[in-house]
Amino acid sequence: MLGACGLITLLTDFGLEDSYVAIMKGQILKFCPQAILVDLTHQIPPQDVRTASFQLDQAVDYFPSGSLHLAVVDPGVGTSRAMLAVRLERAFFVAPDNGLLTRVLARLGPVLEMVRLEVPDSASSTFHGRDVMAPAAGLIAAGKPLTSLGASHSSYQQLEKQAALIDSNRVELSVLAIDRFGNVSFELSKSEGAKLFSPGSCWLAGQHRLRVGSTYAEARLGEPIILWSSAGLLELALRQGSASKRFGLSPGASFRLVQVST
Amino acid sequence: MLGACGLITLLTDFGLEDSYVAIMKGQILKFCPQAILVDLTHQIPPQDVRTASFQLDQAVDYFPSGSLHLAVVDPGVGTSRAMLAVRLERAFFVAPDNGLLTRVLARLGPVLEMVRLEVPDSASSTFHGRDVMAPAAGLIAAGKPLTSLGASHSSYQQLEKQAALIDSNRVELSVLAIDRFGNVSFELSKSEGAKLFSPGSCWLAGQHRLRVGSTYAEARLGEPIILWSSAGLLELALRQGSASKRFGLSPGASFRLVQVST
Amino acid sequence: MLGACGLITLLTDFGLEDSYVAIMKGQILKFCPQAILVDLTHQIPPQDVRTASFQLDQAVDYFPSGSLHLAVVDPGVGTSRAMLAVRLERAFFVAPDNGLLTRVLARLGPVLEMVRLEVPDSASSTFHGRDVMAPAAGLIAAGKPLTSLGASHSSYQQLEKQAALIDSNRVELSVLAIDRFGNVSFELSKSEGAKLFSPGSCWLAGQHRLRVGSTYAEARLGEPIILWSSAGLLELALRQGSASKRFGLSPGASFRLVQVST
Repeated sequence: MLGACGLITLLTDFGLEDSYVAIMKGQILKFCPQAILVDLTHQIPPQDVRTASFQLDQAVDYFPSGSLHLAVVDPGVGTSRAMLAVRLERAFFVAPDNGLLTRVLARLGPVLEMVRLEVPDSASSTFHGRDVMAPAAGLIAAGKPLTSLGASHSSYQQLEKQAALIDSNRVELSVLAIDRFGNVSFELSKSEGAKLFSPGSCWLAGQHRLRVGSTYAEARLGEPIILWSSAGLLELALRQGSASKRFGLSPGASFRLVQVST
Repeated sequence: MLGACGLITLLTDFGLEDSYVAIMKGQILKFCPQAILVDLTHQIPPQDVRTASFQLDQAVDYFPSGSLHLAVVDPGVGTSRAMLAVRLERAFFVAPDNGLLTRVLARLGPVLEMVRLEVPDSASSTFHGRDVMAPAAGLIAAGKPLTSLGASHSSYQQLEKQAALIDSNRVELSVLAIDRFGNVSFELSKSEGAKLFSPGSCWLAGQHRLRVGSTYAEARLGEPIILWSSAGLLELALRQGSASKRFGLSPGASFRLVQVST
Repeated sequence: MLGACGLITLLTDFGLEDSYVAIMKGQILKFCPQAILVDLTHQIPPQDVRTASFQLDQAVDYFPSGSLHLAVVDPGVGTSRAMLAVRLERAFFVAPDNGLLTRVLARLGPVLEMVRLEVPDSASSTFHGRDVMAPAAGLIAAGKPLTSLGASHSSYQQLEKQAALIDSNRVELSVLAIDRFGNVSFELSKSEGAKLFSPGSCWLAGQHRLRVGSTYAEARLGEPIILWSSAGLLELALRQGSASKRFGLSPGASFRLVQVST
């Protein structure tokens, strides 16, 4: 059961130009007028489930225990793909079953309860966020048991991980996300790579020499630096500049590094 | 009278770069500290009253009964145009009298009460959203009667409808809106056109052959499809692509279709 | 002490593509589950402390007394720069000590209390908004005294003012901000310049003749006009058009005017 606050976060690829996000909020507030609503982001690139999975996972630990996270990036809307409501020890999730929950369930599991949301006959075939998932989120936040929303469900889609390739002093990384500042996050967590990318170690990316540091401010203005991001991922940054532009990187790109002596 | 929740939605063309929207929220919260605020959208193209009228109409049904909708797209700020507070059976509206309320009032009327908001001498001449309309919204949400905010008013501006031209098997439609996914909504509602555009019927747009379907997923990747949108309007979509780009359509454009045998 | 509402505004340069802003909100709600959160703006140009200082100052008067304003534009994150919590008569502020508070403290002072926030050992070195400033904002909103968050602090960084140069009938102004409509705000307040730029006076900017008026609507469509903005600053506007584009102005640019007879 949710705590008194009934906190619900929303993550979508709907953008903010249209009233789609607001419509989902209205639907939630119909079923749970006291819900506190927080936007995670609505600027996920259209239908990019992988980025959605990362942004969701990056944020959930910073919300109070018992929060519900509603995430709708749903290229399969109108197909037979399931929609899930999931209860973990410390949070609830409502999302289409398309891999969006891969990261949070792997990291925060075990799953204590999971149901496949029932689709009412009156639902549109193009906006299940409005007609199925937002009402479900509102009902759960208002204290309804998951089992009242659909039949128990036992498995879920998972995205394949684009793991880093590590061969002694050569590493090939996959770009996971780029933020507004042009900071580049790679698919390599601190628990996997802390030893290899230790502070002070040096790497070559093509002609560029990169040092592993701890803060942006260790680099000179315009100089690139590698560090462990606030989300615990390997990050490439440029002090007061855009690393993604300097290195021509976009999500999904690969990035090769060779370790050199310091 | 508003319910206990005091829910207020906001729609503007202010964008999110500046603090204008926040300033209106602060003004509301001064008069109604318990108001729940939901952004409809603030990305209406500058001074585009027609798009505002559509976005507002598309959203209001999904909010709890008794909600108040504050909509400020106001090219006439500083002129003698009126500002209105309107009470309907299921919702309140505060907006400049420039046609913005055309769709909601036509669809959700009758108007039970309407006043022309008084403009205090201290009001600026360039930001009536802040100085007149947001305070009025806060006061109404706090339970003040409309009659305390201005004199009774009996008429309001209406936008002309850009109706579809239908001539047996030829149709000329006007583009009403384009969403973030590039889906194109036309000015033709299901009640007007359901018979003509029935599932399975086929149409030509120039060289393009278009089928009327029910869900995006019926089309192959990159293939266009016509369907009835979640807002009940005729929609042109491209599965996992942008129909507006493919067909070169923008709001206000016209789009010609000729029915062909299936 | 904050009033019952616990209203907290947030201003950052984080943008809305990522979940950074949401993460700060989650942190606040952990410490103050009843806080009412309002976004001032998150579209401050990356690391532009001057624009942040202006946007913050423009907004705070419109919030209820006792509100707390959390502002994180923080190019020095990870350096030894201080983070401050400040109490004034009518508002609280939490921000890095980099000049961001220059305008509000100058205008709304005196400072009744100021502390330098303690940085816990567990804090990251790249996201103090999440690890230090948002928790501090939540704690203050929940009623904690400032002195429990760090040691008393007596001075703060101030940005230099780019004052207007006024030489009889020649004026050189600095562009402070440009809004979504292309309206240009200059660094000249009504109290400084009301006499010089009185309604009806005429000025030349290069070949352009500009009249000082009171409302946008006094100008013809596409005609430029000078007026005092709703924030009390000298403003250059174009009726239903973009003054910044017409005159090629961006923040920080200078703009020369010569007074001519009317």
